[in-house]
Amino acid sequence: MTTPPVRARDLGFLLHDWLDLEALLAYPHFQDHSVETVDAMLDIAGRVAADTFLTHYKAADSQEPHLVEGQVRILPAIHQALAAFAEVGMFAAPFDAEVGGLQLPQLAYSAAMAQFMAANVATSAYPMLTTGNAKLLVRYASEALVKACALPEIEGRYFGTMCLSEPQAGSSLADIATRAVPDGDDGLGARYRLFGNKMWISGGDQDASENIIHLVLAKVPGPDGKLIPGTQGISLFVVPKVLVEGSEYAGQRNDVVVAGLNHKMGYRGTANCLLNFGEGAHYRPGGLAGAVGYRVGGMGQGLPIMFQMMNSARISVGLGAAMLGYRGYRLAVDYARDRRQGRPIGGRGGPPIAIIDHPDVRRLLLAQKAYAEGALALVLYCARLVDEELHGPAEGRDEAAGLLSLLTPIAKTWPSEWGLAANDLAIQVHGGYGYTRDFDVEQLYRDNRLNPIHEGTTGVQGLDLMGRKTLKDDGASLATLRHRVTATVERARHLPALADFAHVLDVTWARIGALVGHLKAAGDDVASLAQATSFLSAFGHAVVAWQWLDQAVVAGSLAATDDPDETAFRAGKLAACRFFFETEVPRVDVWLGIVGRRSDLTQTFDPAGF
Amino acid sequence: MTTPPVRARDLGFLLHDWLDLEALLAYPHFQDHSVETVDAMLDIAGRVAADTFLTHYKAADSQEPHLVEGQVRILPAIHQALAAFAEVGMFAAPFDAEVGGLQLPQLAYSAAMAQFMAANVATSAYPMLTTGNAKLLVRYASEALVKACALPEIEGRYFGTMCLSEPQAGSSLADIATRAVPDGDDGLGARYRLFGNKMWISGGDQDASENIIHLVLAKVPGPDGKLIPGTQGISLFVVPKVLVEGSEYAGQRNDVVVAGLNHKMGYRGTANCLLNFGEGAHYRPGGLAGAVGYRVGGMGQGLPIMFQMMNSARISVGLGAAMLGYRGYRLAVDYARDRRQGRPIGGRGGPPIAIIDHPDVRRLLLAQKAYAEGALALVLYCARLVDEELHGPAEGRDEAAGLLSLLTPIAKTWPSEWGLAANDLAIQVHGGYGYTRDFDVEQLYRDNRLNPIHEGTTGVQGLDLMGRKTLKDDGASLATLRHRVTATVERARHLPALADFAHVLDVTWARIGALVGHLKAAGDDVASLAQATSFLSAFGHAVVAWQWLDQAVVAGSLAATDDPDETAFRAGKLAACRFFFETEVPRVDVWLGIVGRRSDLTQTFDPAGF
Repeated sequence: MTTPPVRARDLGFLLHDWLDLEALLAYPHFQDHSVETVDAMLDIAGRVAADTFLTHYKAADSQEPHLVEGQVRILPAIHQALAAFAEVGMFAAPFDAEVGGLQLPQLAYSAAMAQFMAANVATSAYPMLTTGNAKLLVRYASEALVKACALPEIEGRYFGTMCLSEPQAGSSLADIATRAVPDGDDGLGARYRLFGNKMWISGGDQDASENIIHLVLAKVPGPDGKLIPGTQGISLFVVPKVLVEGSEYAGQRNDVVVAGLNHKMGYRGTANCLLNFGEGAHYRPGGLAGAVGYRVGGMGQGLPIMFQMMNSARISVGLGAAMLGYRGYRLAVDYARDRRQGRPIGGRGGPPIAIIDHPDVRRLLLAQKAYAEGALALVLYCARLVDEELHGPAEGRDEAAGLLSLLTPIAKTWPSEWGLAANDLAIQVHGGYGYTRDFDVEQLYRDNRLNPIHEGTTGVQGLDLMGRKTLKDDGASLATLRHRVTATVERARHLPALADFAHVLDVTWARIGALVGHLKAAGDDVASLAQATSFLSAFGHAVVAWQWLDQAVVAGSLAATDDPDETAFRAGKLAACRFFFETEVPRVDVWLGIVGRRSDLTQTFDPAGF
Repeated sequence: MTTPPVRARDLGFLLHDWLDLEALLAYPHFQDHSVETVDAMLDIAGRVAADTFLTHYKAADSQEPHLVEGQVRILPAIHQALAAFAEVGMFAAPFDAEVGGLQLPQLAYSAAMAQFMAANVATSAYPMLTTGNAKLLVRYASEALVKACALPEIEGRYFGTMCLSEPQAGSSLADIATRAVPDGDDGLGARYRLFGNKMWISGGDQDASENIIHLVLAKVPGPDGKLIPGTQGISLFVVPKVLVEGSEYAGQRNDVVVAGLNHKMGYRGTANCLLNFGEGAHYRPGGLAGAVGYRVGGMGQGLPIMFQMMNSARISVGLGAAMLGYRGYRLAVDYARDRRQGRPIGGRGGPPIAIIDHPDVRRLLLAQKAYAEGALALVLYCARLVDEELHGPAEGRDEAAGLLSLLTPIAKTWPSEWGLAANDLAIQVHGGYGYTRDFDVEQLYRDNRLNPIHEGTTGVQGLDLMGRKTLKDDGASLATLRHRVTATVERARHLPALADFAHVLDVTWARIGALVGHLKAAGDDVASLAQATSFLSAFGHAVVAWQWLDQAVVAGSLAATDDPDETAFRAGKLAACRFFFETEVPRVDVWLGIVGRRSDLTQTFDPAGF
């Protein structure tokens, strides 16, 4: 029998017991679904993930994407896996029925994706990008573009990319130099010719889909021929690899070429490309150089529109990071149960014991559990907010949107940083074996190292959280969060095993609230923002502490059971919560202390001293 | 001109200004050396490291050791590098003149090795193991064995290994099952035939040296033919790959075969083997199966003798880890100076600035500097203790030996954990580029991930520090350490920039002292030892905090200078000290809190809940 990469009870607890999926399914938008249909979908996802994604995890690492005559070839097993993914409707799952989708809640879709990501994060990147790409088009593009580009993506026939970074402009999109020159219009609307280079394009080329839909940020030159400095000049363009129906050049190969492949430490199954647009050397649609693209959204609106996709991608990065941490954790548990070595401290003689019985190994496993399951919970919580924002009762939508916005930098960063930490500990549990490529944990660790970098580094997320989402915000979403924390605290206060943690959590959030007030009153945001990463670390741990306490409250409040597995499962949730409060929450004060002191060291230090 | 992998001033400050190498050179044992000869040696080491070790860093990663007809082949560039290493006398450097050595102080030798390790840690592992091997033989083996095995190692013609672990016994040496059966004696002394498998043998086979001298732990069966359980039955044997002069079977290939190579995440240049002893299938010295070995030291004395080599290897692991962190730090500084991206927060327009001018990037660099230079300082401090123990004034030798023993688990672990953390941050400074194999930082990170595992995992070091070195110790060495800390505190109190840190350090060590007293009084070492890793973390940070303050005191007390580079250098030392106290020292209280609470979670939790 196929073992799914994520334990059904782990997902079931979060979806049903903790996040009350049933209540979501009562929204009119989800009326065609029931707990049973969702569980069936999750079951199918688990099987397909195990049978087609997990099976080529190592092969895709050792047999990297490569160029053959300018075309990227990826492992055939990836083709097959993505065909199976399409076959069971996973590309269509999160879309509305009117564009051919299954109209599944984001929460349920995320739980399904969690299994694919646990099985193979690099292969999962192709549908993740394709779905985000199509979602953007469905929301912002003309009917003709949706029909020509998004619908084939929803069917899984075309894949999508996001082309933002350039070699000289990664985090700093204001400096992009790709030009989009007006070129009349055709059946797909306002047409442009694009010229420039895009770096770090995941799925930028591959041979698994019929076509590739690039979403490209570029600047339209002003009347003086110059690009507008800053982000205001950025617009968004659809640039298909092969021009699509409705285009004057339908069927012609577009002027987009792969200039090179990046050879990464991990995440190798995802082809990552440097793309040249508008070279004119190999392909000239209509006989002219310039990549043909169609504008989506208004002039200069490229960045805000792209950020719809980016925010969703950030949460997806968090999910992938969580699942890498999760899979390493499960592998480490299995290894620790099987591997026998050493004796109990203070014991005498006898045969070696399973290493899971050494307290320090249990510490390594509890930490992984706290990080991985905490990260998964966080991301699924955000997925539920997406559903509440888009389809929930009208009066709650703004609150959900605000809270989601506040939590997005956490949902991206916390799983990335701590999922990686979990993978580090999974290697440690395996000892020397974990350092070899005979086991998966070293690859999980290499794969996960990407996550604190792409779609906005940890430093960038810190600036977002502390700047835009806190110092420059009216505080309503922080108040919402605080309100939800307090509700958890009130429930936990009455449970003897959790009352102490409830108190600690309350004090921690009071301290965060006071610090935010203090920083706002102090002014000089530059001085505050120099501590943004520590603020992000503190805030992230405090959010996860809240959710761990909430998970523990729920686990401790379920109907009595005689099932020993279920009893052990609930005890595990309580233990992870306890571990988090005993071992992790004390770090919050350290980070808050750093933020509160606002040391000027990093601002004033002369880098000649490095 | 060749740029050495370690800046001369970084080494010079630690050796001369901080650790007073000149005072060491006044010991009679080192009378043939002077500051000038040592500096000349360091200069040569830096050039050879740059010209022969650094040059194949990436090649040795992508072209792994491989088996050809049972023989391990390693990259020819490694042969050439090690020949150059031998050529300049580096194999001989730390040995006494009477065995052909240069009689260099361990401190100076370590500073030289630091450069080779910074350039290429995997290639440096061969001489590191060879030197440790020969040192053990010189101290414990017969004259005949020294002549036949150690002297060619000191010349760099033979390389050495240490064969401890077995597939079923890594950290738990009591469970080794390799048998050594008496086989008469010959010109090399008591002869045995060994039968068993040894795992994780670095340099276990290679084609760069004329011969390989294995030091093998094995058990001699008792009269009943059974092995003595536990570590008491372990003896130590010299097992040459090709039998050496004095042996009845001189010139014959010994019955040691490579059963397999481990394919590692990093550190790939070091061939890591599973060795089978005594298979009798390919080689039968004297016509009989069984690997021929000669006992070194008394029956059952194998482990204490091997731990001489192991303790030295642990400090070498710390040095390698420090230098991986150091090299990543220097690469990150160079990258951050060159790479232009973004604008100052709160600034408007203008061209992109060098990322070294972003406060968060400076934070990433200061952390790396604090970790890498702190780790290097720690290891060199321990190297000086080796010289004090072996060759210093008689009245100080016991104190040096005791302090070295106390600090060894720190010197192994702290650089391993925090050097790796530095490499993680070096990748982050490089952004996406750092995740590609076009830059060295991802390899440094992969290489360094081994260090918390081999030669005793972090968990094992924690048990050593808290158990043997603290709870079961009379406290004399901790008192020595405390005394040295207090001396630094007294000096720092009078420097306005450091007075606050002096106070914090004093309080921190008082808290550690009180905690140790409390734990000893409380009894139940099992409960305390469940927190051993947190104790190790706290202790390590407190030791490095002390040494950073001490470095800062020295940097602040040097004669005035007009040299802007020197001024910047000293400001850098003060800034790193300040960073460590502002950002790192607060963590100590978190770890001490965990230790002090002695939670029973990891002891009582039923692992069915994982």
